[in-house]
Amino acid sequence: MQSRTTQVVIVGGGPSGLLLSQLLHKAGIDTVVLERQSRDYVLSRIRAGVLEHGFVELMRRAGAGARMDRDGEVHHGFHIAHQGQLDRINLAASAPGQTVMVYGQTEVTRDLYAARDAMGGQIIHEAVNVALHDLMTGHPYVTYVLHGEKCRIDTNFIVGADGFHGVSRKSIPADILQEYEKVYPFGWLGVLSETPPAAAELIYARHERGFALCSMRNARLSRYYIQVPLTDRVEDWSDDAFWSELKRRLPDQIGQKMQTGPSIEKSIAPLRSFVAEPMRYGTLFLAGDAAHIVPPTGAKGLNLAASDIHYLYEGLADHFLRGDDAGLDSYSEKALARVWKAERFSWWMTGLLHRFPDMSPADLRLQQAGLDYLFSSDAAQASLAENYVGLPY
Amino acid sequence: MQSRTTQVVIVGGGPSGLLLSQLLHKAGIDTVVLERQSRDYVLSRIRAGVLEHGFVELMRRAGAGARMDRDGEVHHGFHIAHQGQLDRINLAASAPGQTVMVYGQTEVTRDLYAARDAMGGQIIHEAVNVALHDLMTGHPYVTYVLHGEKCRIDTNFIVGADGFHGVSRKSIPADILQEYEKVYPFGWLGVLSETPPAAAELIYARHERGFALCSMRNARLSRYYIQVPLTDRVEDWSDDAFWSELKRRLPDQIGQKMQTGPSIEKSIAPLRSFVAEPMRYGTLFLAGDAAHIVPPTGAKGLNLAASDIHYLYEGLADHFLRGDDAGLDSYSEKALARVWKAERFSWWMTGLLHRFPDMSPADLRLQQAGLDYLFSSDAAQASLAENYVGLPY
Repeated sequence: MQSRTTQVVIVGGGPSGLLLSQLLHKAGIDTVVLERQSRDYVLSRIRAGVLEHGFVELMRRAGAGARMDRDGEVHHGFHIAHQGQLDRINLAASAPGQTVMVYGQTEVTRDLYAARDAMGGQIIHEAVNVALHDLMTGHPYVTYVLHGEKCRIDTNFIVGADGFHGVSRKSIPADILQEYEKVYPFGWLGVLSETPPAAAELIYARHERGFALCSMRNARLSRYYIQVPLTDRVEDWSDDAFWSELKRRLPDQIGQKMQTGPSIEKSIAPLRSFVAEPMRYGTLFLAGDAAHIVPPTGAKGLNLAASDIHYLYEGLADHFLRGDDAGLDSYSEKALARVWKAERFSWWMTGLLHRFPDMSPADLRLQQAGLDYLFSSDAAQASLAENYVGLPY
Repeated sequence: MQSRTTQVVIVGGGPSGLLLSQLLHKAGIDTVVLERQSRDYVLSRIRAGVLEHGFVELMRRAGAGARMDRDGEVHHGFHIAHQGQLDRINLAASAPGQTVMVYGQTEVTRDLYAARDAMGGQIIHEAVNVALHDLMTGHPYVTYVLHGEKCRIDTNFIVGADGFHGVSRKSIPADILQEYEKVYPFGWLGVLSETPPAAAELIYARHERGFALCSMRNARLSRYYIQVPLTDRVEDWSDDAFWSELKRRLPDQIGQKMQTGPSIEKSIAPLRSFVAEPMRYGTLFLAGDAAHIVPPTGAKGLNLAASDIHYLYEGLADHFLRGDDAGLDSYSEKALARVWKAERFSWWMTGLLHRFPDMSPADLRLQQAGLDYLFSSDAAQASLAENYVGLPY
């Protein structure tokens, strides 16, 4: 068996794991990242594209923000389409100068790989059968199999950034872990196309036929979504059918002039609210999707992983550089306080804009009243904006 | 048949009808108020006690505000109890100087009777079998039976302020009227007692055993509520059982020192969201509970009737004094826009604080996160405060 040691093993080589590895390395703390998939596979995943200010700051702090700052688009607001009209949320409504950055998760990951490579960071791809051992002792270790060979890493801490289906959360005993879950009765059918975005800013649309979202990655790459029943399959939706349905759910001024083209990716994702507590078990710390999932409305998923990474980075740096464990000891509580607020926001925004199968006429009018009130109230718009740009860490 | 004429027949002698009658009389417009019950019966009904600023202004404008201004209590905030702690909403969070007035509906009605009597206002009590005729013509009339005698009033307009069960809404053909209804799976058990209030300001309590509310009418008269299953009956609840259950749902600092005493009124009310559209049919205008019901959380019921009366008063005055029908023509639309926002608020505040039988552990944590977010956000508190003091007319 091949054996090595490091200060922190990070399970999962997505953007969260890479970001933490990069931040710790810059602080002089040694890490190894274990990723089950190949680098090409990781880079092929189409995910989020709206970054909170806090995430943007972390990328810069990690020395991985240059291309993002050059190519990313700073957005000062977004639109909500309802009742045939297009209203706008000004993100500065929450506080002067607040913005978000539109920059695809794939590009974030690519930049982090480049930054890790430049520093000689250790990322082990295609590590399978990962198992976590002795988590409650001061000497935990991780075993895995790489190209048929058994390997072991002894470490001080393990960070589980390996997503909802990863091994990390499952390594916490069932009698310790409390899981909260809410499943929504619909999914999002998403299409990526090499077309200019329908509008300069995102459009979230409430429509009697169901929710729709016009998003983008850059000036030549658009991302669109429509709410579909959970029983729909991707094969049921031709490109033509998708564009036609999308346009029906948008105000005429948008739908009639938007440019369409062949889909280069098409997939259906279910919507789920999920939280696992606690986020620490001995020397194991969970981060991102390993501990929590939000429905995608409002784009909190990746951003919530970033705030976990922020707290973890601070806690691990305090431990290794200053011998102070206060940050690690309060990690679970601090992270969860912010997680639940983001869960609340994502649930609320999902409820504001989607058509639920069991909605009565009264429910529909109350939902519409929610939007009418929102656009009549500075306070309500400020509340939405402060959540959208990201609550403070 | 006894016959007479007037400019406006107001069906319903509760606070809305009396207030409108008083305002119109002061503007030189002749009205007759028809009330099915006796004056003593109307004054025995225990209802709301928190008046928005707009309601207070209308009472003053009607020349009926002197005792209210002397004996009513101006409140600058209220409390929400949750997780064993007591947080406060400062009503000035929405705008400087915003307040509400605590003054019982019974007292409002008493003051309006006195004001009407002083001006020789015509209030016909115990008018039964009220029927509305020829509403779509320019010459509507109302018939009723008074002490066995058939009577008729010819009029220009009829205002239906006769509550949810009144004849006015039922006089609109079913194919014209659209009704929206939402029924909640619990009720409020209310107790009135001659004891000092548990605290100087209202306390809304979210608790795992169910919602509770500490309200008051004045320094010697308290009003308390607890959420109960719809299957409970008043006879199931002794005074002792009520006080004991109430205290369990309050923070120790409140429950342990509060003064209890014999109940002088005890009743269970269901919670309902209800809106009927339109609020105008020809020469008939609906106001208050005749057109809409809110769950009592946030105390919007009587206040929403007051905003209807405000719009109606302006519209009728414009018609009779200036020959301008714009206000009457836009009444239904204007009133309903505000109604739906108040419906949204009452539904939202009910959802924030009550325990619903079908809530999952995730739902409960999302609800708690709603309160945690509220008390971490100036914008969210401002939004709650602006709704509580009353959205602008």
